[in-house]
Amino acid sequence: MEVAQVLHMNGGVGDSSYANNSLVQQKVISLTKPVREEAITSLYCSTLPRSLAIADLGCSSGPKTLFVASELIKTVEKLSRKLKHKSPEYRVFLNDLPGNDFNNIFKSLDSFKMKLQTEVAGGIGPCYFSGVPGSFYGRAFPNQSLHFVHSSYSLQWLSKVPEGVDNNKGNIYLGRTSPSNVVRAYYDQFQRDFSVFLKCRAEELVQGGRMVLTFLGRRNEDPCSKDGCYIWELMANALNDMVSQGIIKEEQVDSFNIPQYTPSASEVKLEVLKEGSFAINRVEVSEVNWNAFDEWTALDFESERSESIGDGGYNVAQCMRAVAEPMLVSHFGEDIIEEVFSRYQQILADRMSKEKTQFFNVTVLLSRKD
Amino acid sequence: MEVAQVLHMNGGVGDSSYANNSLVQQKVISLTKPVREEAITSLYCSTLPRSLAIADLGCSSGPKTLFVASELIKTVEKLSRKLKHKSPEYRVFLNDLPGNDFNNIFKSLDSFKMKLQTEVAGGIGPCYFSGVPGSFYGRAFPNQSLHFVHSSYSLQWLSKVPEGVDNNKGNIYLGRTSPSNVVRAYYDQFQRDFSVFLKCRAEELVQGGRMVLTFLGRRNEDPCSKDGCYIWELMANALNDMVSQGIIKEEQVDSFNIPQYTPSASEVKLEVLKEGSFAINRVEVSEVNWNAFDEWTALDFESERSESIGDGGYNVAQCMRAVAEPMLVSHFGEDIIEEVFSRYQQILADRMSKEKTQFFNVTVLLSRKD
Repeated sequence: MEVAQVLHMNGGVGDSSYANNSLVQQKVISLTKPVREEAITSLYCSTLPRSLAIADLGCSSGPKTLFVASELIKTVEKLSRKLKHKSPEYRVFLNDLPGNDFNNIFKSLDSFKMKLQTEVAGGIGPCYFSGVPGSFYGRAFPNQSLHFVHSSYSLQWLSKVPEGVDNNKGNIYLGRTSPSNVVRAYYDQFQRDFSVFLKCRAEELVQGGRMVLTFLGRRNEDPCSKDGCYIWELMANALNDMVSQGIIKEEQVDSFNIPQYTPSASEVKLEVLKEGSFAINRVEVSEVNWNAFDEWTALDFESERSESIGDGGYNVAQCMRAVAEPMLVSHFGEDIIEEVFSRYQQILADRMSKEKTQFFNVTVLLSRKD
Repeated sequence: MEVAQVLHMNGGVGDSSYANNSLVQQKVISLTKPVREEAITSLYCSTLPRSLAIADLGCSSGPKTLFVASELIKTVEKLSRKLKHKSPEYRVFLNDLPGNDFNNIFKSLDSFKMKLQTEVAGGIGPCYFSGVPGSFYGRAFPNQSLHFVHSSYSLQWLSKVPEGVDNNKGNIYLGRTSPSNVVRAYYDQFQRDFSVFLKCRAEELVQGGRMVLTFLGRRNEDPCSKDGCYIWELMANALNDMVSQGIIKEEQVDSFNIPQYTPSASEVKLEVLKEGSFAINRVEVSEVNWNAFDEWTALDFESERSESIGDGGYNVAQCMRAVAEPMLVSHFGEDIIEEVFSRYQQILADRMSKEKTQFFNVTVLLSRKD
């Protein structure tokens, strides 16, 4: 599987689209707002740039894609008024892998910009948006061309499935039964990938530039703990049930591995320290329920969605489908998809009724050292 | 009709896609290569930029989209070797309206970049591609951020249908029967739009920056001459036939007007002189057959296309369909499309068998004055 070709969220705006099934990711964006505010405030006040370059890495294509940019711009506009400075010019770079649905983002840009102009009294500085397709595990921007880098729920994706995980029988990611060489291979791949990420961004950011990175991660230091693995273990259960009923072949499941690593805060910190280009200003761990509807009041979302709030299994299955369907289709073909997610939904509903099920988020605020 | 929302070439890679029906546009790109070579050579040799920013405005989504960038990069690489300078870094901005199929371009970028690296002995400087959605009749890039602007077969599109053309009965663009107020309204809109275009680009280009612009235009100074109007007059004939048979309503055709103006070389020059920011280095008028297959040898295109060479009516109808279908659908609905293009194809085939039918191209090379 060529991750850069296959990994992308479901496009469009349909029932299975990422745009309509990314409430967890939106919730995480809200949770981490204070860290972004702290970062953009210290960046702006210390450098007062005339032209501010912001990149969102792994921007995806949904309601949250432009939200972060608008929030950052609003904060800077407030600061510039307070400091009696002219609004800067904004250059916003939206990055994701080439399979991302950029068309969908681009179609909403004009109305987004108009809305933003009206929401800020006195208007905002000129805004230039562009789409930058390509892997962030490589250079994506010119030297010292960025002031602020944001990435949320993207860096847990690896550049590829680690090598040497053939004996990860019955699992599609790390799990309680994963052999130690498999655990090592996943962690090694994370270290290599994140280290490359940091090196590239260090070249692209100006001195004093900030990064706010949120990983889908873990609280527990054990990489095979439920924190980061349970959601995939349950998907493996659905696939294994289909193996035992002869619907798919055992070898197919054995050779399918999710290119992901959900790090702990200390694993993230360790790589930053080892790489050496960035100072660590803040580290936070937060959590969000698998069924993000649990945590939103009725006012937080449009009324037509209300009916589905109660059906946590459906919501979580749809959320995971929006994320994983392209990878599953690439490996197993389209025919089994409905069946996999129907079984997965039932398994999820059962587990969620019996235990507290949460995603864990590791957020770091880093500054480019001089 | 909101042109910025409705005007885009047919997306994807199917039978009616622009990608598969833009041979005329590709042919024009080949014809104008010497002008681009002259422009990039004089630009590079006079400024020797370490980072070269190139924008293609109205890039569309097809085989030609990345071709111009690759050709410019290859020329600069040759020059930098000759002058014993290090390869510059390239920043390539692909601009089109938000409805353009950027996804299709982005998916081909990785293989394009790899091919380009192997085609140039010793490799090329780092390349950063981005997609910039938005109208070029407004600011699309930061101040003085571009060195080279290219646009081919895009600037004949107006920002909107001119006002006051209600009495253009039986026509969908200018035609022999267009009243003089309609001719004036179209020309005024062209002047306003192109003047705004020049002002915006003057702000975005560095001093000494170059622009190579190719318009679908005319040789004849009469805006209602066949040069620029005939292709649309024949489409109007197809629509009018359908009116007389009661398939569509007369008012529908009367209220449909193509937001285009095909200027003569002197009209283009006049606007450049009036606006004042650019020196005119070169003006050329060229032509290309409606059926661009006529002019290509068997080696120029893939063999599977050969069967359709003979069917000029089909080729030209498909070419015009790739360009005009979204506008027609927006105004008339989807149901009549097959019928319109089937009739149009017959009319085109008939005319092409009886007379020489050509598009005329006006190309200008401009430099940003100090």
